[in-house]
Amino acid sequence: MGAALPRKELFDIPEGVIYLDGNSLGVLPKGAVARATEVIRDEWGGQLIKAWNTAGWMALPAGVGDTIAGLIGAPAGAVATGDTLSIKVYQALAASLRMRPDRRVILSDNGNFPSDLYMAEGLINTIDKGYVLRTPAPVDVLDAITDEVAVVMLTQVDYRTGRMHNVQEVTQAAHAAGAVMIWDLAHSAGAVPVDMTASHAEFAVGCTYKYLNGGPGAPAFIYARPDIILDLQPALSGWLGHAAPFAMEQAYRPAMSTERLRVGTPSIVQLSILQEALKVWEGVDMADLRAASIRLSETFIAEVEARCASLTLASPRDPAMRGSQVSFAFENGYPAMQALIERGVIGDFRAPDIMRFGFTPLYLDQAEIVRAAEIIEDVISNEVWRDPKYHMRSRVT
Amino acid sequence: MGAALPRKELFDIPEGVIYLDGNSLGVLPKGAVARATEVIRDEWGGQLIKAWNTAGWMALPAGVGDTIAGLIGAPAGAVATGDTLSIKVYQALAASLRMRPDRRVILSDNGNFPSDLYMAEGLINTIDKGYVLRTPAPVDVLDAITDEVAVVMLTQVDYRTGRMHNVQEVTQAAHAAGAVMIWDLAHSAGAVPVDMTASHAEFAVGCTYKYLNGGPGAPAFIYARPDIILDLQPALSGWLGHAAPFAMEQAYRPAMSTERLRVGTPSIVQLSILQEALKVWEGVDMADLRAASIRLSETFIAEVEARCASLTLASPRDPAMRGSQVSFAFENGYPAMQALIERGVIGDFRAPDIMRFGFTPLYLDQAEIVRAAEIIEDVISNEVWRDPKYHMRSRVT
Repeated sequence: MGAALPRKELFDIPEGVIYLDGNSLGVLPKGAVARATEVIRDEWGGQLIKAWNTAGWMALPAGVGDTIAGLIGAPAGAVATGDTLSIKVYQALAASLRMRPDRRVILSDNGNFPSDLYMAEGLINTIDKGYVLRTPAPVDVLDAITDEVAVVMLTQVDYRTGRMHNVQEVTQAAHAAGAVMIWDLAHSAGAVPVDMTASHAEFAVGCTYKYLNGGPGAPAFIYARPDIILDLQPALSGWLGHAAPFAMEQAYRPAMSTERLRVGTPSIVQLSILQEALKVWEGVDMADLRAASIRLSETFIAEVEARCASLTLASPRDPAMRGSQVSFAFENGYPAMQALIERGVIGDFRAPDIMRFGFTPLYLDQAEIVRAAEIIEDVISNEVWRDPKYHMRSRVT
Repeated sequence: MGAALPRKELFDIPEGVIYLDGNSLGVLPKGAVARATEVIRDEWGGQLIKAWNTAGWMALPAGVGDTIAGLIGAPAGAVATGDTLSIKVYQALAASLRMRPDRRVILSDNGNFPSDLYMAEGLINTIDKGYVLRTPAPVDVLDAITDEVAVVMLTQVDYRTGRMHNVQEVTQAAHAAGAVMIWDLAHSAGAVPVDMTASHAEFAVGCTYKYLNGGPGAPAFIYARPDIILDLQPALSGWLGHAAPFAMEQAYRPAMSTERLRVGTPSIVQLSILQEALKVWEGVDMADLRAASIRLSETFIAEVEARCASLTLASPRDPAMRGSQVSFAFENGYPAMQALIERGVIGDFRAPDIMRFGFTPLYLDQAEIVRAAEIIEDVISNEVWRDPKYHMRSRVT
């Protein structure tokens, strides 16, 4: 048995808020302010440059990587942290293309997060050798894996619908066709059980400010399968991925570990907050978390569908096919979401018509889900969203 | 007349420390802890996802960029912030190569910071079309600018010796040969007067944790000359450089501004600390700062040379040729620096034999410089550095 869920006592969540947007930005872990104060005042301020040694800053990125490894079924030492998710996508893609020099197709899907597709586009244009990016619908990905494909790059959980790819099945198909496999775990890490070792995929990337509660702009991570690391040629060959960064050699010589996927100076303050945030996972059994997530989302779907006929479920009905979010399509989803936010039910909106609700069993309980559905019913049934103030498009969420 | 220097009252510096390493990691501005607490507790914790709008997070990267623009002689809107310096080097290099498709040479120098050279190497290997990186000695750069050169990429102030390139002269030579010019301002921004507009260089990049006191891992910046922005093809085409990030379009469409040089989700906590740190520059006249820097470094050279015959000046003797640092070569520089650090005189060591001392007129005065020279004399004359404890190589500085 893991720790009982939810563990609300570990977080500071505003009174009166039902937060269904932990899939966009997680909530504040209680220790974050104290840890940030310590790293800024005592380590930076008090130890200055010496803190790289005395406060353990040099080892921090790898240490945080090891903790994340434990959450995605990877061995210690197989995860590097730093940069943003988009940068990590670029690294994984560039390395993959070099592993399959005779192929010219990057396969993704049209449900992938746009930045992943944009980064592929930027890499293709930079290399300028006739690479193409194919983006079939998520359900057509398996059929699109041909022997032209150098790399399959997919986000496991669709950011709009919550639909999940089957990691084992897709990875096996990619490998059977001779392609490299990259999984983006942005909506998986801390949301659903992940076993990168069992998947045998070459790469995974992810962010830490969603279900991992690392805070706005927390660093990203990248996993590489341990047996490929020493042959992997980093495109973004920064000094902190060098075998001996402080030897100041003229030529790049990659670290003999996953550290070769590091680039520049790590964001120590954000990494320290993330390290603190990851403590809430101590003792959590991911199978328990998944079961709790499914209970929350099944309750939500049943309650909303019983109350709001004009909302159409845009997520798979089978919970086994769903990540830890539920989306409803609604033509007036944008103003409706603004009205909900004003009433303390915080989800978000994704164009063109998706109202998105994330379920984070670490800090949500069933009663809140029922209460959220009641408030949604009020906004929809009474057409509260017609108020012009909810139609202002200056907002980003 | 600008603000009087130094402005020690704006910083928290440990008692008994003479900090000559602000060229590696700047000191703690007094407002940083309070600002970090505010952004973490009140903005992230209290406003959650709404903070992107309500706390101004969306506008933060550009706002910080505008402040930095003012410090490097660039117009508002011409500087994008985020990522690390190595990533920004890669962006500038990749864009430059696309601007000169018929040329195959990247010219730098062997005094450039290794990560800049490593990133060039990674880009060359990724494109794999016969590009070469040439790295003559700094004094030979002008002669190496030929019409084969696509881009000249140099750090203005040599990180080892403090030797400065002449920005105007080198940029003019690059342009006369048809090459693009990139300046790395890592040791320039906040250290010496910089006028990017007058230089007419296409790009500048820099970091903010040295003379700009942004804290460990503070985000980097990139300047692009305004007239080239709309033709510039970003290699690292992340969603926050998109013209409409939240439209979630499938294809990349770059922002019609310098924002196209942004990549992923910005590190809001570190950016907020940096924003606070940049307030110490209000009212500072860069000509005054430069004059104060030269007074400090001239005093230091005179005092050290008078006291320590075994230390050899490794920086230009002419202050006009020097950035805001002074280096001495000493065979036992590594243990000598450890002994100095233990005695409160914090500089750093760069292989193979460079003892490096940075001068930050915002928080250093003449009396500290003389006192530092006295302590150096003690360590050198009495061969304090012979103690085995100073020879342990586990340290990174």
